[in-house]
Amino acid sequence: MHILITNDDGVRAPGLAALAEAMSTLGDVTVLAPDRNWSASGHVKTMHKPLRLHQVACSDGRPALSCSGAPSDCVALALMGVLDREVDLVVSGINPHANLGQDVTYSGTVTAAMEAALLGKPGIAVSTEQTETVGYATAAQAAVAVAKKVMNKGLPEGVLLSVNAPTLPTDQVRGTRITRLGRRDYRDQLIVRDDPYGRPYYWIGGEGPVALPGEGTDVEALEEGFISITPLHMDMSAPRSVAAELRSWDW
Amino acid sequence: MHILITNDDGVRAPGLAALAEAMSTLGDVTVLAPDRNWSASGHVKTMHKPLRLHQVACSDGRPALSCSGAPSDCVALALMGVLDREVDLVVSGINPHANLGQDVTYSGTVTAAMEAALLGKPGIAVSTEQTETVGYATAAQAAVAVAKKVMNKGLPEGVLLSVNAPTLPTDQVRGTRITRLGRRDYRDQLIVRDDPYGRPYYWIGGEGPVALPGEGTDVEALEEGFISITPLHMDMSAPRSVAAELRSWDW
Repeated sequence: MHILITNDDGVRAPGLAALAEAMSTLGDVTVLAPDRNWSASGHVKTMHKPLRLHQVACSDGRPALSCSGAPSDCVALALMGVLDREVDLVVSGINPHANLGQDVTYSGTVTAAMEAALLGKPGIAVSTEQTETVGYATAAQAAVAVAKKVMNKGLPEGVLLSVNAPTLPTDQVRGTRITRLGRRDYRDQLIVRDDPYGRPYYWIGGEGPVALPGEGTDVEALEEGFISITPLHMDMSAPRSVAAELRSWDW
Repeated sequence: MHILITNDDGVRAPGLAALAEAMSTLGDVTVLAPDRNWSASGHVKTMHKPLRLHQVACSDGRPALSCSGAPSDCVALALMGVLDREVDLVVSGINPHANLGQDVTYSGTVTAAMEAALLGKPGIAVSTEQTETVGYATAAQAAVAVAKKVMNKGLPEGVLLSVNAPTLPTDQVRGTRITRLGRRDYRDQLIVRDDPYGRPYYWIGGEGPVALPGEGTDVEALEEGFISITPLHMDMSAPRSVAAELRSWDW
């Protein structure tokens, strides 16, 4: 079993080392991660320039490859053969913030798992609500449990998993829920200021998002102290009812 | 009616000017587009640096704002208030290649419309199969027809439209179909070479994608000479059957 570990926070992020350490209990681990932070960078395919790889070390000294591309580029390179060894499973994270609701199309952590799904390999994105009080232990343990089941059962074509851990020590987690995406209110604000030369600049800022609870959602699961596992599908086609409504529009 | 026009090929791209020209028959148009090409850049939210806007001109001389951020940043800035005027509709394109099947999470053209959907405005992404023989006329006319209906009927929450035009003159198009996402085979190849200094670099290359026909898909519609309108939904949660299967895994 050969497991590729990547993330969107860059190869020196502590969450990456925590994930690699946890996954090494399940098989051989290769870490190939971006050389810089790619948070909220979306699903990237770098086509118009070459990519570079360098031998580096994770924050815990573990050997790793750093890549000049995005998280999804790291996955593409590994699955296209730069490792000279087949990859059986892709696990991305641990992101030090939850990836809930509408976060998923932005999230570098999740888009790495999307790339795995598009290339026909099981992909798991792992995020944790916050790390200040409980670190990465709860999320790492959840990642191992999910990866074990995925290795055993497989995932349907086009499906990836987004795992989120609540802010609780491992022994206080209430269980695991299979969820659907909930909603967050981003509360973004447009900050307009002048630079030192009197020219305006614009900064997308504001407070962090507020989760809006909904039954059966990832948001609700975390609030209630559960690990959330959200199966995502790459087919973003709207439900049939929407298509039927559009067909009625007299084209 | 105030329509925001953006794209992922940059403010000088001819497809952007063609779209702005077509849309100006429906209302007031503002062009706010990236200052460079962002193809296959995914859904970006630029949070860790400021964004700049400059007064520039499109390829046809039309005034425009160029932005240092991604297509989705352009939409966010406009909908958050940099234009000092409410935006009623966001139209992105015209992309000089089709955005079909699995392209949508990568596509800057489509992610601009996603950003509109997340911010509560109707968003339409417009792409054309190729431009060498028929230019942008067929796609531009399709965009106007779709935008008219969307302005009249609205779109359900979380829904955006991806419109693709076939390689046909307008008078040879066979009609319009509401479709679901099909599949493409990307045929990507990993190119490994040494740079002038003997160090390896990696380039994701290969031939263009091959569309795999499927009934009711965007791919099939284009092959059969129809305009394809694919309603997409931001909720990537997998179908209930997948969630039910995962729940049976004995957590």
